Amino acid sequence: MMELRAQRPGKAIAVNTERLLERIETLAAIGRQADGACARLALTDDDAAGRALVIGWMKDAGMSIEVDRIGNIIATLPGDGASPPVMTGSHIDTVATGGRFDGNLGVLAGIEVVQSIREAGLKLRRPIAVSIFTNEEGVRFQPDMMGSLVYAGGLALDTALDTRDERGVRLGDELARLGYAGEIEPGAIRPAAFVELHIEQGPVLDNAGEVLGAVEKVQGISWQEITIAGKSNHAGTTPMSMRHDAAHCAAEVVTFIRRLSEEFGGAQVATAGHISVSPNLINVIAREAVLSVDLRNTDDAALALAEQKLTEFLAVLATREGVNISTKILVRTAPVEFDQKIVALIEANAARMGMPIRRMASGAGHDAQMIARIAPTAMIFIPSIGGISHNPREDTRPEHIGAGLELLAHTLVALADE
Amino acid sequence: MMELRAQRPGKAIAVNTERLLERIETLAAIGRQADGACARLALTDDDAAGRALVIGWMKDAGMSIEVDRIGNIIATLPGDGASPPVMTGSHIDTVATGGRFDGNLGVLAGIEVVQSIREAGLKLRRPIAVSIFTNEEGVRFQPDMMGSLVYAGGLALDTALDTRDERGVRLGDELARLGYAGEIEPGAIRPAAFVELHIEQGPVLDNAGEVLGAVEKVQGISWQEITIAGKSNHAGTTPMSMRHDAAHCAAEVVTFIRRLSEEFGGAQVATAGHISVSPNLINVIAREAVLSVDLRNTDDAALALAEQKLTEFLAVLATREGVNISTKILVRTAPVEFDQKIVALIEANAARMGMPIRRMASGAGHDAQMIARIAPTAMIFIPSIGGISHNPREDTRPEHIGAGLELLAHTLVALADE
Repeated sequence: MMELRAQRPGKAIAVNTERLLERIETLAAIGRQADGACARLALTDDDAAGRALVIGWMKDAGMSIEVDRIGNIIATLPGDGASPPVMTGSHIDTVATGGRFDGNLGVLAGIEVVQSIREAGLKLRRPIAVSIFTNEEGVRFQPDMMGSLVYAGGLALDTALDTRDERGVRLGDELARLGYAGEIEPGAIRPAAFVELHIEQGPVLDNAGEVLGAVEKVQGISWQEITIAGKSNHAGTTPMSMRHDAAHCAAEVVTFIRRLSEEFGGAQVATAGHISVSPNLINVIAREAVLSVDLRNTDDAALALAEQKLTEFLAVLATREGVNISTKILVRTAPVEFDQKIVALIEANAARMGMPIRRMASGAGHDAQMIARIAPTAMIFIPSIGGISHNPREDTRPEHIGAGLELLAHTLVALADE
Repeated sequence: MMELRAQRPGKAIAVNTERLLERIETLAAIGRQADGACARLALTDDDAAGRALVIGWMKDAGMSIEVDRIGNIIATLPGDGASPPVMTGSHIDTVATGGRFDGNLGVLAGIEVVQSIREAGLKLRRPIAVSIFTNEEGVRFQPDMMGSLVYAGGLALDTALDTRDERGVRLGDELARLGYAGEIEPGAIRPAAFVELHIEQGPVLDNAGEVLGAVEKVQGISWQEITIAGKSNHAGTTPMSMRHDAAHCAAEVVTFIRRLSEEFGGAQVATAGHISVSPNLINVIAREAVLSVDLRNTDDAALALAEQKLTEFLAVLATREGVNISTKILVRTAPVEFDQKIVALIEANAARMGMPIRRMASGAGHDAQMIARIAPTAMIFIPSIGGISHNPREDTRPEHIGAGLELLAHTLVALADE
């Protein structure tokens, strides 16, 4: 157990990292696969089993439970007054090859903070709420971050309820079947502030040997699918000057986005993760290539400029190579700026813990970026070993979990006692 | 019918393009698919039906039939003397999406020349032989050009007979089953000269609006499979500087071989027709990429230099990107130079027909390049419309078929009457 002092003298709680780690393991056992992966896809039986387990812990911590119409769970520990709660939380659904920490950490750490506050008999001005947002991963039902998006008013409830999975099963029907079609309106409980603790899911902290990150923004995301229609021909008999090689054009796009990211520098990242060519034979010039381009930047103007430069390049390429290029926007989200006061509070609390903290951007999407639309919000990151996530090898050192938990506790107590 | 004069005064024959075109259509009906493609894969029942049909035509033309131990069929029209024959021929097996002309033209045009010689009562010094080589396409059994390779002594007969298809069926057993396990040794009939008429299977003649090609060489071929092992990571959270992106590296290889072909110029062609990346997801940096590189050149030293430059580039790329790159040579054949006297004879005969002819290289492999190991050899090309081959849309104008047939007739008569 670590002793920690809240912002006001006399208000001390002791968070229990061991208990948190045990609960992470217990939750990870639900939906565990042979390779150790967690597969609790949103609104499956395993997700429901996970929800029941975590709700039990929430009740043990003295919290009252409410479920909204999109299945978000909001557990609240009352405060001294009737003011809106300080909220923390995340999600407990996983991808099919999920790790133990992604999402789960943020929810279970929130419960641990509340339970510690209660065990310490600490009285705070504001209630503290811990939320579990429905379907953050977006594997079974799209879009991802759905529960928090509906919560923040960014997606109509009925549209979300009418979403269907690959087999045609309706999300609203699954909520009803599993007993999570709640009655309160999403967003009815509007938090005074929101802080989410999450593993980085990237290599920055781990690579730098650092433990804590104060997340001040989230990258904007631009996904597009690019289809290149060339002409299939014999690889031996077709002179280079007579080719309309779709595979070559795809490769030019891939190397172009690398150059683009180098030219832009900073937070600009660019990835072509999906490439398929047809007919995909050694001695046949490709007729068609389809590839994905994933551009992300924390600066929306820069991201838009990167998109524009790609569009211009595709036009030049199509003309030069005599191919037809079409594009389809799959996802486009604007970057999110978190609340600078909460970021500064997180930094100050890290300093009080005697630990350095890095100001950073999130490269992945999180529920916090949705809640930022309706409340002052920020995030705390702790390292992912090797930057690995969405993988059974996802891991974080216990002492880093402890540090993140302590920083979350300091921050929630400070915000609730303002 | 076209009247044509052989080299020696008084020796005239009339070739029948109509009859040849009808036979091409009749043969194409065997193994025809719904989309019009011919699918007579080597040593299938359809290939056997094609062989039976063509052997019938050979007999109609007054030829005696011999089958060697690898199933090559050699039909001979006796000459005035006992000298070795002048040989023409090609193959009648097809790929699964084959056209009507690839291979079939060379065999059926040879029969037409022989039949016309016989009908004209023309007496020539040398016998004329028409060969059907087993398994030129190499789809069902590898390597391709197998029958002619064994004929020329480039592959041991027993090795070829022991080849198995994907289902484990042995080539030698299929020959026996279909009645084409002949008794004479492959290559026992060593031709005095060999001339093969073939469609170009490329766009050069068609693009230039030309009708005839005198093929003086065949490109050497270098096929390799390149496997790039990088590191899978999140496309959003992984800074560009920390990536080991296998898909990006594959794209660099593809664009490098284009630059290489431009730098080398001339006959150098380079193709990456096969590319696959894993896990092939939009938001995941690729862990692995496998691609094929097909390099061809008529100059062996240049081809070897291109291979060397690629190897050097891969080493630089692996170091720069922190990936592991391994390569596997799949095919390596040296360029083949045809016999300049026969090439010149073909040119002289075209001039006598009043038609221009282009000296050119073959970008595809042909039986003639194997027979060139044991006899003076050359080829005649006629256009493929749009350069299309190995495709049901493979086509050549009837008048171009006629011109090719006439040039073949002139050339065989001249060679046989030397």
